[in-house]
Amino acid sequence: MSKKKEENKEQEEILADQEEVLEEVIEDIVEEEAPETTEATEPEKSELDLANERAEDFENKYLRAHAEMQNIQRRSNEERQTLQRYRSQDLAKKILPSLDNLERALAVEGLTDDVKKGLEMVQDSLIQALKEEGVTEVSMESFDPNYHMAVQSIPADDDNPADSIAQVLQKGYQLHERLLRPAMVVVYN
Amino acid sequence: MSKKKEENKEQEEILADQEEVLEEVIEDIVEEEAPETTEATEPEKSELDLANERAEDFENKYLRAHAEMQNIQRRSNEERQTLQRYRSQDLAKKILPSLDNLERALAVEGLTDDVKKGLEMVQDSLIQALKEEGVTEVSMESFDPNYHMAVQSIPADDDNPADSIAQVLQKGYQLHERLLRPAMVVVYN
Repeated sequence: MSKKKEENKEQEEILADQEEVLEEVIEDIVEEEAPETTEATEPEKSELDLANERAEDFENKYLRAHAEMQNIQRRSNEERQTLQRYRSQDLAKKILPSLDNLERALAVEGLTDDVKKGLEMVQDSLIQALKEEGVTEVSMESFDPNYHMAVQSIPADDDNPADSIAQVLQKGYQLHERLLRPAMVVVYN
Repeated sequence: MSKKKEENKEQEEILADQEEVLEEVIEDIVEEEAPETTEATEPEKSELDLANERAEDFENKYLRAHAEMQNIQRRSNEERQTLQRYRSQDLAKKILPSLDNLERALAVEGLTDDVKKGLEMVQDSLIQALKEEGVTEVSMESFDPNYHMAVQSIPADDDNPADSIAQVLQKGYQLHERLLRPAMVVVYN
Protein backbone atom coordinates (compact mmCIF):
# COMPACT_ATOMS: atom_id res chain seq x y z
CA MET A 1 0.00 0.00 0.00
CA SER A 2 2.61 2.50 1.09
CA LYS A 3 4.73 1.38 -1.81
CA LYS A 4 1.97 2.25 -4.20
CA LYS A 5 1.68 5.66 -2.56
CA GLU A 6 5.37 6.20 -2.99
CA GLU A 7 5.13 5.30 -6.63
CA ASN A 8 2.30 7.71 -7.06
CA LYS A 9 4.30 10.39 -5.35
CA GLU A 10 7.29 9.74 -7.52
CA GLN A 11 5.15 9.93 -10.59
CA GLU A 12 3.63 13.19 -9.46
CA GLU A 13 7.07 14.63 -8.90
CA ILE A 14 8.21 13.53 -12.33
CA LEU A 15 5.11 15.01 -13.88
CA ALA A 16 5.62 18.24 -11.98
CA ASP A 17 9.20 18.42 -13.24
CA GLN A 18 8.12 17.87 -16.79
CA GLU A 19 5.43 20.49 -16.49
CA GLU A 20 7.98 22.96 -15.21
CA VAL A 21 10.28 22.26 -18.11
CA LEU A 22 7.45 22.70 -20.58
CA GLU A 23 6.30 25.91 -18.96
CA GLU A 24 9.79 27.29 -19.27
CA VAL A 25 9.91 26.30 -22.91
CA ILE A 26 6.57 27.97 -23.53
CA GLU A 27 7.63 31.11 -21.71
CA ASP A 28 10.78 31.34 -23.78
CA ILE A 29 8.89 31.02 -27.01
CA VAL A 30 6.28 33.55 -25.96
CA GLU A 31 8.95 36.05 -24.92
CA GLU A 32 10.72 35.69 -28.23
CA GLU A 33 7.57 36.49 -30.09
CA ALA A 34 6.25 39.45 -28.21
CA PRO A 35 7.80 42.25 -30.33
CA GLU A 36 6.23 41.06 -33.59
CA THR A 37 2.66 41.75 -32.49
CA THR A 38 3.14 45.54 -32.72
CA GLU A 39 3.76 45.19 -36.46
CA ALA A 40 0.06 44.63 -37.13
CA THR A 41 -0.67 48.38 -37.45
CA GLU A 42 0.96 48.60 -40.89
CA PRO A 43 -1.62 48.98 -43.68
CA GLU A 44 -0.15 46.84 -46.46
CA LYS A 45 0.77 43.26 -45.73
CA SER A 46 3.81 41.97 -47.54
CA GLU A 47 4.41 38.32 -48.33
CA LEU A 48 6.88 38.35 -45.51
CA ASP A 49 4.30 39.65 -43.06
CA LEU A 50 1.90 36.93 -44.12
CA ALA A 51 4.54 34.25 -43.72
CA ASN A 52 5.36 35.60 -40.30
CA GLU A 53 1.72 35.60 -39.35
CA ARG A 54 1.36 32.06 -40.51
CA ALA A 55 4.37 31.05 -38.45
CA GLU A 56 2.98 32.83 -35.45
CA ASP A 57 -0.39 31.23 -35.92
CA PHE A 58 1.01 27.71 -36.03
CA GLU A 59 3.29 28.45 -33.15
CA ASN A 60 0.29 29.44 -31.05
CA LYS A 61 -1.63 26.37 -32.13
CA TYR A 62 1.34 24.24 -31.30
CA LEU A 63 1.69 25.77 -27.85
CA ARG A 64 -1.99 25.35 -27.15
CA ALA A 65 -1.93 21.72 -28.26
CA HIS A 66 1.03 21.15 -26.02
CA ALA A 67 -0.60 22.73 -23.01
CA GLU A 68 -3.74 20.72 -23.69
CA MET A 69 -1.69 17.56 -23.86
CA GLN A 70 -0.21 18.31 -20.46
CA ASN A 71 -3.69 18.86 -19.05
CA ILE A 72 -4.93 15.59 -20.45
CA GLN A 73 -2.00 13.78 -18.98
CA ARG A 74 -2.44 15.36 -15.58
CA ARG A 75 -6.15 14.65 -15.46
CA SER A 76 -5.62 11.10 -16.61
CA ASN A 77 -3.13 10.56 -13.80
CA GLU A 78 -5.45 12.00 -11.20
CA GLU A 79 -8.30 9.88 -12.46
CA ARG A 80 -6.17 6.77 -12.38
CA GLN A 81 -5.20 7.43 -8.80
CA THR A 82 -8.83 7.86 -7.77
CA LEU A 83 -9.86 4.70 -9.56
CA GLN A 84 -7.11 2.83 -7.76
CA ARG A 85 -8.01 4.23 -4.38
CA TYR A 86 -11.68 3.28 -4.60
CA ARG A 87 -11.40 0.28 -6.86
CA SER A 88 -12.68 -2.12 -4.15
CA GLN A 89 -15.76 -0.05 -3.39
CA ASP A 90 -18.36 -2.12 -5.24
CA LEU A 91 -17.19 -5.54 -4.15
CA ALA A 92 -16.66 -4.36 -0.56
CA LYS A 93 -20.21 -3.00 -0.40
CA LYS A 94 -21.59 -6.31 -1.61
CA ILE A 95 -19.61 -8.25 0.97
CA LEU A 96 -21.01 -6.36 3.96
CA PRO A 97 -24.22 -8.45 4.13
CA SER A 98 -22.06 -11.59 4.43
CA LEU A 99 -20.36 -10.02 7.43
CA ASP A 100 -23.76 -9.25 8.95
CA ASN A 101 -24.86 -12.85 8.38
CA LEU A 102 -21.69 -14.12 10.01
CA GLU A 103 -22.31 -11.97 13.06
CA ARG A 104 -25.85 -13.25 13.28
CA ALA A 105 -24.68 -16.85 12.92
CA LEU A 106 -22.15 -16.31 15.70
CA ALA A 107 -24.90 -14.97 17.97
CA VAL A 108 -26.88 -18.23 17.73
CA GLU A 109 -26.97 -20.08 21.07
CA GLY A 110 -25.44 -23.50 21.56
CA LEU A 111 -22.76 -23.44 18.85
CA THR A 112 -20.10 -26.11 19.31
CA ASP A 113 -16.56 -24.84 19.77
CA ASP A 114 -15.56 -26.21 16.36
CA VAL A 115 -18.32 -24.38 14.54
CA LYS A 116 -17.68 -21.19 16.47
CA LYS A 117 -13.99 -21.35 15.65
CA GLY A 118 -14.78 -21.97 11.99
CA LEU A 119 -17.15 -19.01 11.83
CA GLU A 120 -14.69 -16.74 13.58
CA MET A 121 -11.99 -17.78 11.14
CA VAL A 122 -14.19 -16.83 8.19
CA GLN A 123 -15.13 -13.56 9.90
CA ASP A 124 -11.52 -12.67 10.69
CA SER A 125 -10.31 -13.45 7.18
CA LEU A 126 -13.09 -11.34 5.64
CA ILE A 127 -12.43 -8.40 7.95
CA GLN A 128 -8.70 -8.71 7.26
CA ALA A 129 -9.24 -8.77 3.49
CA LEU A 130 -11.43 -5.67 3.67
CA LYS A 131 -8.99 -3.89 5.95
CA GLU A 132 -6.11 -4.50 3.56
CA GLU A 133 -8.14 -2.79 0.85
CA GLY A 134 -8.86 0.22 3.10
CA VAL A 135 -12.28 -0.75 4.50
CA THR A 136 -12.86 -0.06 8.20
CA GLU A 137 -15.81 0.21 10.58
CA VAL A 138 -17.02 3.77 11.06
CA SER A 139 -16.09 5.36 14.36
CA MET A 140 -18.70 5.15 17.13
CA GLU A 141 -17.31 7.86 19.41
CA SER A 142 -20.29 10.16 19.06
CA PHE A 143 -23.19 10.65 16.69
CA ASP A 144 -22.14 12.02 13.28
CA PRO A 145 -24.88 12.30 10.66
CA ASN A 146 -22.25 11.78 7.95
CA TYR A 147 -21.51 8.28 9.18
CA HIS A 148 -24.49 7.26 11.34
CA MET A 149 -28.19 6.82 10.75
CA ALA A 150 -30.28 7.30 13.89
CA VAL A 151 -33.15 4.82 13.73
CA GLN A 152 -34.29 5.59 17.27
CA SER A 153 -33.53 8.15 19.96
CA ILE A 154 -33.52 8.02 23.75
CA PRO A 155 -33.68 11.09 26.04
CA ALA A 156 -30.21 12.14 27.15
CA ASP A 157 -29.40 12.26 30.91
CA ASP A 158 -26.44 13.06 33.18
CA ASP A 159 -24.65 9.80 32.36
CA ASN A 160 -25.52 9.86 28.70
CA PRO A 161 -25.08 13.26 27.07
CA ALA A 162 -26.84 14.18 23.86
CA ASP A 163 -25.27 12.69 20.70
CA SER A 164 -23.71 9.77 22.50
CA ILE A 165 -24.56 6.43 20.95
CA ALA A 166 -26.76 4.08 23.00
CA GLN A 167 -26.72 1.04 20.75
CA VAL A 168 -25.41 -0.08 17.38
CA LEU A 169 -28.04 -2.03 15.43
CA GLN A 170 -25.87 -2.54 12.36
CA LYS A 171 -22.23 -1.63 11.87
CA GLY A 172 -21.27 1.01 9.34
CA TYR A 173 -18.24 0.81 7.05
CA GLN A 174 -16.09 3.25 5.13
CA LEU A 175 -13.51 2.86 2.35
CA HIS A 176 -10.76 5.29 3.25
CA GLU A 177 -12.78 8.45 3.99
CA ARG A 178 -15.68 7.48 1.72
CA LEU A 179 -18.79 6.01 3.38
CA LEU A 180 -19.84 2.55 2.17
CA ARG A 181 -22.88 2.38 4.41
CA PRO A 182 -23.86 4.26 7.58
CA ALA A 183 -24.07 2.59 10.96
CA MET A 184 -27.66 2.16 12.21
CA VAL A 185 -27.70 3.45 15.77
CA VAL A 186 -29.88 4.34 18.73
CA VAL A 187 -28.78 7.77 19.89
CA TYR A 188 -29.27 9.90 23.02
CA ASN A 189 -30.66 13.37 22.40
CA MET B 1 2.30 -9.39 -7.20
CA SER B 2 1.63 -9.78 -10.89
CA LYS B 3 -0.93 -7.03 -10.68
CA LYS B 4 1.57 -4.68 -9.15
CA LYS B 5 3.91 -5.54 -11.96
CA GLU B 6 1.23 -4.72 -14.46
CA GLU B 7 0.57 -1.44 -12.79
CA ASN B 8 4.24 -0.65 -12.80
CA LYS B 9 4.36 -1.55 -16.44
CA GLU B 10 1.44 0.71 -17.21
CA GLN B 11 3.02 3.51 -15.26
CA GLU B 12 6.29 2.99 -17.02
CA GLU B 13 4.55 3.20 -20.34
CA ILE B 14 2.89 6.42 -19.41
CA LEU B 15 6.14 7.84 -18.15
CA ALA B 16 7.84 6.68 -21.33
CA ASP B 17 5.16 8.45 -23.35
CA GLN B 18 5.71 11.63 -21.46
CA GLU B 19 9.43 11.37 -21.85
CA GLU B 20 8.96 10.97 -25.56
CA VAL B 21 6.91 14.11 -25.68
CA LEU B 22 9.54 15.99 -23.74
CA GLU B 23 12.28 14.69 -25.95
CA GLU B 24 10.39 15.90 -28.96
CA VAL B 25 10.02 19.32 -27.44
CA ILE B 26 13.68 19.43 -26.65
CA GLU B 27 14.55 18.16 -30.12
CA ASP B 28 12.36 20.82 -31.61
CA ILE B 29 14.20 23.47 -29.70
CA VAL B 30 17.55 22.06 -30.67
CA GLU B 31 16.47 21.84 -34.31
CA GLU B 32 15.33 25.39 -34.19
CA GLU B 33 18.74 26.49 -33.07
CA ALA B 34 20.61 24.20 -35.41
CA PRO B 35 20.00 26.09 -38.66
CA GLU B 36 21.97 29.06 -37.40
CA THR B 37 25.13 27.00 -37.41
CA THR B 38 24.62 25.55 -40.91
CA GLU B 39 23.48 28.84 -42.32
CA ALA B 40 27.05 29.89 -42.73
CA THR B 41 27.58 27.47 -45.63
CA GLU B 42 24.45 28.41 -47.56
CA PRO B 43 24.96 31.61 -49.45
CA GLU B 44 21.73 33.58 -49.14
CA LYS B 45 18.44 32.87 -47.47
CA SER B 46 15.93 35.63 -47.68
CA GLU B 47 13.95 36.79 -44.70
CA LEU B 48 10.88 35.44 -46.48
CA ASP B 49 12.41 31.98 -46.89
CA LEU B 50 13.22 31.93 -43.21
CA ALA B 51 9.73 33.00 -42.23
CA ASN B 52 8.22 30.32 -44.47
CA GLU B 53 10.51 27.72 -42.99
CA ARG B 54 9.52 28.80 -39.55
CA ALA B 55 5.83 28.54 -40.45
CA GLU B 56 6.31 25.08 -41.89
CA ASP B 57 8.31 24.02 -38.91
CA PHE B 58 5.62 25.07 -36.45
CA GLU B 59 2.94 23.50 -38.59
CA ASN B 60 4.73 20.18 -38.38
CA LYS B 61 5.21 20.56 -34.67
CA TYR B 62 1.55 21.37 -34.26
CA LEU B 63 0.48 18.33 -36.28
CA ARG B 64 2.77 16.10 -34.29
CA ALA B 65 1.54 17.46 -30.97
CA HIS B 66 -2.02 17.00 -32.11
CA ALA B 67 -1.44 13.37 -33.13
CA GLU B 68 0.36 12.74 -29.89
CA MET B 69 -2.54 14.21 -27.94
CA GLN B 70 -4.93 11.80 -29.62
CA ASN B 71 -2.65 8.90 -28.78
CA ILE B 72 -2.50 9.91 -25.17
CA GLN B 73 -6.26 10.17 -24.99
CA ARG B 74 -6.77 6.78 -26.60
CA ARG B 75 -4.27 5.08 -24.33
CA SER B 76 -5.73 6.76 -21.28
CA ASN B 77 -9.20 5.48 -22.20
CA GLU B 78 -7.95 1.96 -22.73
CA GLU B 79 -6.15 2.06 -19.43
CA ARG B 80 -9.23 3.29 -17.61
CA GLN B 81 -11.30 0.48 -19.05
CA THR B 82 -8.77 -2.11 -17.95
CA LEU B 83 -8.63 -0.64 -14.45
CA GLN B 84 -12.42 -0.79 -14.26
CA ARG B 85 -12.62 -4.33 -15.56
CA TYR B 86 -10.13 -5.70 -13.06
CA ARG B 87 -10.73 -3.31 -10.20
CA SER B 88 -12.01 -6.06 -7.86
CA GLN B 89 -9.04 -8.31 -8.46
CA ASP B 90 -7.14 -7.67 -5.22
CA LEU B 91 -10.09 -7.82 -2.85
CA ALA B 92 -11.55 -10.86 -4.63
CA LYS B 93 -8.26 -12.71 -4.30
CA LYS B 94 -8.15 -11.98 -0.59
CA ILE B 95 -11.72 -13.21 -0.09
CA LEU B 96 -11.08 -16.66 -1.58
CA PRO B 97 -9.61 -18.10 1.67
CA SER B 98 -12.86 -17.12 3.45
CA LEU B 99 -14.79 -19.14 0.91
CA ASP B 100 -12.45 -22.09 1.52
CA ASN B 101 -12.99 -21.77 5.27
CA LEU B 102 -16.75 -21.69 4.77
CA GLU B 103 -16.62 -24.85 2.70
CA ARG B 104 -14.55 -26.54 5.35
CA ALA B 105 -16.94 -25.38 8.10
CA LEU B 106 -19.88 -26.74 6.10
CA ALA B 107 -18.14 -30.12 5.79
CA VAL B 108 -17.96 -30.54 9.58
CA GLU B 109 -20.18 -33.40 10.78
CA GLY B 110 -23.15 -32.86 13.06
CA LEU B 111 -24.00 -29.23 12.26
CA THR B 112 -27.47 -28.21 13.40
CA ASP B 113 -29.83 -27.13 10.65
CA ASP B 114 -29.75 -23.54 11.90
CA VAL B 115 -25.98 -23.33 11.76
CA LYS B 116 -25.89 -25.01 8.37
CA LYS B 117 -28.46 -22.61 7.00
CA GLY B 118 -26.55 -19.66 8.42
CA LEU B 119 -23.28 -20.83 6.86
CA GLU B 120 -24.92 -21.46 3.51
CA MET B 121 -26.41 -17.98 3.58
CA VAL B 122 -22.99 -16.44 4.12
CA GLN B 123 -21.54 -18.64 1.40
CA ASP B 124 -24.26 -17.79 -1.10
CA SER B 125 -24.03 -14.07 -0.47
CA LEU B 126 -20.23 -14.14 -0.87
CA ILE B 127 -20.41 -16.13 -4.09
CA GLN B 128 -23.13 -13.81 -5.38
CA ALA B 129 -21.09 -10.69 -4.55
CA LEU B 130 -18.07 -12.13 -6.35
CA LYS B 131 -20.15 -13.20 -9.33
CA GLU B 132 -21.59 -9.72 -9.76
CA GLU B 133 -18.05 -8.40 -9.98
CA GLY B 134 -17.13 -10.97 -12.64
CA VAL B 135 -15.52 -13.66 -10.46
CA THR B 136 -16.37 -17.28 -11.31
CA GLU B 137 -15.02 -20.75 -10.59
CA VAL B 138 -12.67 -22.02 -13.27
CA SER B 139 -14.12 -24.69 -15.57
CA MET B 140 -13.41 -28.29 -14.63
CA GLU B 141 -14.21 -29.93 -17.96
CA SER B 142 -10.71 -31.16 -18.66
CA PHE B 143 -7.23 -30.41 -17.46
CA ASP B 144 -5.93 -27.04 -18.64
CA PRO B 145 -2.53 -25.97 -17.31
CA ASN B 146 -3.61 -22.33 -17.64
CA TYR B 147 -6.31 -22.80 -15.02
CA HIS B 148 -5.42 -25.97 -13.11
CA MET B 149 -2.49 -27.09 -11.03
CA ALA B 150 -2.03 -30.85 -10.98
CA VAL B 151 -0.86 -31.80 -7.50
CA GLN B 152 -1.18 -35.52 -8.16
CA SER B 153 -1.77 -37.80 -11.15
CA ILE B 154 -3.49 -41.17 -11.57
CA PRO B 155 -2.97 -43.53 -14.54
CA ALA B 156 -5.69 -43.04 -17.16
CA ASP B 157 -7.88 -45.99 -18.15
CA ASP B 158 -10.79 -46.74 -20.47
CA ASP B 159 -13.32 -44.95 -18.29
CA ASN B 160 -11.02 -42.07 -17.44
CA PRO B 161 -9.09 -40.71 -20.42
CA ALA B 162 -5.92 -38.71 -19.99
CA ASP B 163 -6.42 -35.09 -18.94
CA SER B 164 -9.77 -35.73 -17.26
CA ILE B 165 -9.94 -34.45 -13.71
CA ALA B 166 -10.22 -37.08 -10.97
CA GLN B 167 -10.65 -34.79 -7.96
CA VAL B 168 -10.70 -31.10 -7.07
CA LEU B 169 -8.70 -30.41 -3.91
CA GLN B 170 -9.24 -26.66 -3.98
CA LYS B 171 -11.44 -24.65 -6.31
CA GLY B 172 -9.88 -22.19 -8.70
CA TYR B 173 -11.29 -18.77 -9.57
CA GLN B 174 -11.00 -16.31 -12.42
CA LEU B 175 -11.98 -12.65 -12.82
CA HIS B 176 -13.41 -12.44 -16.33
CA GLU B 177 -10.75 -14.26 -18.32
CA ARG B 178 -7.93 -13.46 -15.86
CA LEU B 179 -6.93 -16.21 -13.44
CA LEU B 180 -7.14 -15.33 -9.72
CA ARG B 181 -5.84 -18.68 -8.53
CA PRO B 182 -5.61 -22.09 -10.22
CA ALA B 183 -7.70 -25.06 -9.11
CA MET B 184 -5.68 -27.75 -7.34
CA VAL B 185 -6.59 -31.03 -8.95
CA VAL B 186 -5.78 -34.71 -9.21
CA VAL B 187 -5.58 -35.56 -12.90
CA TYR B 188 -5.61 -38.73 -15.00
CA ASN B 189 -2.68 -39.13 -17.37
